[in-house]
Amino acid sequence: MSEEIKRREKSPVEEFRRERERLNSIVLRRGKENIKKFFTLDAAVYKEGALSAKTKELLGLTASLVLRCDDCILYHLIRCYEEKVTDQEVEEAFSVALVVGGSIVIPHLRRAFGSWEELKEKGLSREGGQP
Amino acid sequence: MSEEIKRREKSPVEEFRRERERLNSIVLRRGKENIKKFFTLDAAVYKEGALSAKTKELLGLTASLVLRCDDCILYHLIRCYEEKVTDQEVEEAFSVALVVGGSIVIPHLRRAFGSWEELKEKGLSREGGQP
Amino acid sequence: MSEEIKRREKSPVEEFRRERERLNSIVLRRGKENIKKFFTLDAAVYKEGALSAKTKELLGLTASLVLRCDDCILYHLIRCYEEKVTDQEVEEAFSVALVVGGSIVIPHLRRAFGSWEELKEKGLSREGGQP
Amino acid sequence: MSEEIKRREKSPVEEFRRERERLNSIVLRRGKENIKKFFTLDAAVYKEGALSAKTKELLGLTASLVLRCDDCILYHLIRCYEEKVTDQEVEEAFSVALVVGGSIVIPHLRRAFGSWEELKEKGLSREGGQP
Amino acid sequence: MSEEIKRREKSPVEEFRRERERLNSIVLRRGKENIKKFFTLDAAVYKEGALSAKTKELLGLTASLVLRCDDCILYHLIRCYEEKVTDQEVEEAFSVALVVGGSIVIPHLRRAFGSWEELKEKGLSREGGQP
Amino acid sequence: MSEEIKRREKSPVEEFRRERERLNSIVLRRGKENIKKFFTLDAAVYKEGALSAKTKELLGLTASLVLRCDDCILYHLIRCYEEKVTDQEVEEAFSVALVVGGSIVIPHLRRAFGSWEELKEKGLSREGGQP
Repeated sequence: MSEEIKRREKSPVEEFRRERERLNSIVLRRGKENIKKFFTLDAAVYKEGALSAKTKELLGLTASLVLRCDDCILYHLIRCYEEKVTDQEVEEAFSVALVVGGSIVIPHLRRAFGSWEELKEKGLSREGGQP
Repeated sequence: MSEEIKRREKSPVEEFRRERERLNSIVLRRGKENIKKFFTLDAAVYKEGALSAKTKELLGLTASLVLRCDDCILYHLIRCYEEKVTDQEVEEAFSVALVVGGSIVIPHLRRAFGSWEELKEKGLSREGGQP
Repeated sequence: MSEEIKRREKSPVEEFRRERERLNSIVLRRGKENIKKFFTLDAAVYKEGALSAKTKELLGLTASLVLRCDDCILYHLIRCYEEKVTDQEVEEAFSVALVVGGSIVIPHLRRAFGSWEELKEKGLSREGGQP
Repeated sequence: MSEEIKRREKSPVEEFRRERERLNSIVLRRGKENIKKFFTLDAAVYKEGALSAKTKELLGLTASLVLRCDDCILYHLIRCYEEKVTDQEVEEAFSVALVVGGSIVIPHLRRAFGSWEELKEKGLSREGGQP
Repeated sequence: MSEEIKRREKSPVEEFRRERERLNSIVLRRGKENIKKFFTLDAAVYKEGALSAKTKELLGLTASLVLRCDDCILYHLIRCYEEKVTDQEVEEAFSVALVVGGSIVIPHLRRAFGSWEELKEKGLSREGGQP
Repeated sequence: MSEEIKRREKSPVEEFRRERERLNSIVLRRGKENIKKFFTLDAAVYKEGALSAKTKELLGLTASLVLRCDDCILYHLIRCYEEKVTDQEVEEAFSVALVVGGSIVIPHLRRAFGSWEELKEKGLSREGGQP
């Protein structure tokens, strides 16, 4: 196997996706009606409406940053990437989250900047679903 | 004094503004350079840029809802009102915040819906500043 | 109006209920499908199942205490009262929440003990709904 | 009753103390061994040791600010006042808390600055106990 | 060493236990009286009383989920497993936690479902102690 | 390469520093004026003033513990180590954080005790910057 392929496989974004998929299949097999309804609702609130899907993903991203959940941040970053959010727009959402949430957000911000770089370098595609 | 005037004076939005102004004057009198710089930075991140001021206020509103801070929610609701955010847009930001933050957000959501009604009924103007 | 009646009307539990009802009617008038679905789901997860309604209310109470939301705590205390949770059971759930959440929970614990006293003294009835 | 006396009675610091005392008596009457042990431990960790009582109160104040609990903030401000913390020292602890916790801390910071002014103006004395 | 044994050794549940034990021995060697008392109190609140040990573990599990602490969740899952909590009961506690805490809980919920599967497959035994 | 050297390279403290440096360089390359100003302000509030740099690092450490951010805890532990905070002082700050924040802090406390041991054993030097 080439070095390039190995490096891709060790991508945090790819690892996150694979692990998330593996665990989601357990959730859907073991979770009952209420948990499934929550997952459906979670997908519904980000759908285009009076606010664009792009704006809603920026809302989800900012909320995830101030609540300091790396998996949620990465999920919404991937969605922002798909919705063609620009570098400048992501940076400005990051700055709002940093000021609202304070320096305790910095370790997550650092990883978020790193993931955004990776997304742009590798041009990953999407599979949808919950944070 | 008429009943109407008394009712207006008991408006939670007006009370919030008066108390906030009174306390802000203490902060600015007693706070030193670092606190003042934070307040300046806090104003700066919501300024129009790659993202509109309106979108940034929606980010601030959603972040405040999931972090469950009534004063911050009210501040950003007033700013959303000034930036001509529509009922539908506010409702959709609320729904994202509710799903991200869970039922623990509901008491704040209830008060936010109440404040939004009051803002529309009374058509309040703005004085700027920090949450 | 008698002093007794006035005192009852100033009951924090009664005030909470009235204000909550007033605001809930705004939420239901202004909230769209997703917010309504969340409210339905919120009611559903506390229904009797493999775990009793009583146990589920104790879960909701403990979660509300560690997340430090007074309205949510009061709501679940009222529900615990209706489900015939005893003084000893409430006290033990409080002690778990205090140890998990730390001294930052104490102000909420104090108010929760006060509300529990009031509930027992006044024997309030219930109207259901979200925290 | 003179205006001066009425103003003092409406002091948030005094109100906080009275209500806290009323509720603490319920906690101590209804709380069992584990809750009492927690309260004892809570008092013990602020006692003079390798770190001074003053430094420990500043730790408690900063922790309460970033966790955004007004009652806890006020309790530790009263204790800081008793331990002869200066205006400059309080202001610097506030600035650390503001930067760590972000703008979501501002409403609590505003009230904390207001309470500190009140403490200095009125020279209140102390009664000890838990936040 | 067989593949089976290696896979078991890489079990997240086993890793968690080993690392936790290693660090607990440092805490007990370096922590003084107050920290030790806290650990004792932490064990005490989960003991059988008016509420069963099983119910108390479900309280601890739900609190840990809404506070989003993976180690605490795993600890209480292990304890729930030992207290013979059923799949249905765990799933219902998960659904309460998900609705109270919102989608930000989902990454922890996913890992919790995964750990529960592992616990059932491997039938691990217990060593006690703090989260 | 000797076992000793390999073990040092796998030091969590060293890994944290390397990864933090790598990501900080992305933040500084991609972050605009507001994010940079926040980083400058973050450094400024810990500078010697009315409170010593040592006391301020203890404030930062306690705030990071109750907010449960491992990277922030480790950063302030390193700074405390540099400011010659003693074992007893760190232990007392830990005990305040544990009581304020509750058992949910324990997993972070365990890792903090482990990192403090490592810092003392290896006598690491410092490179400065944000948590």
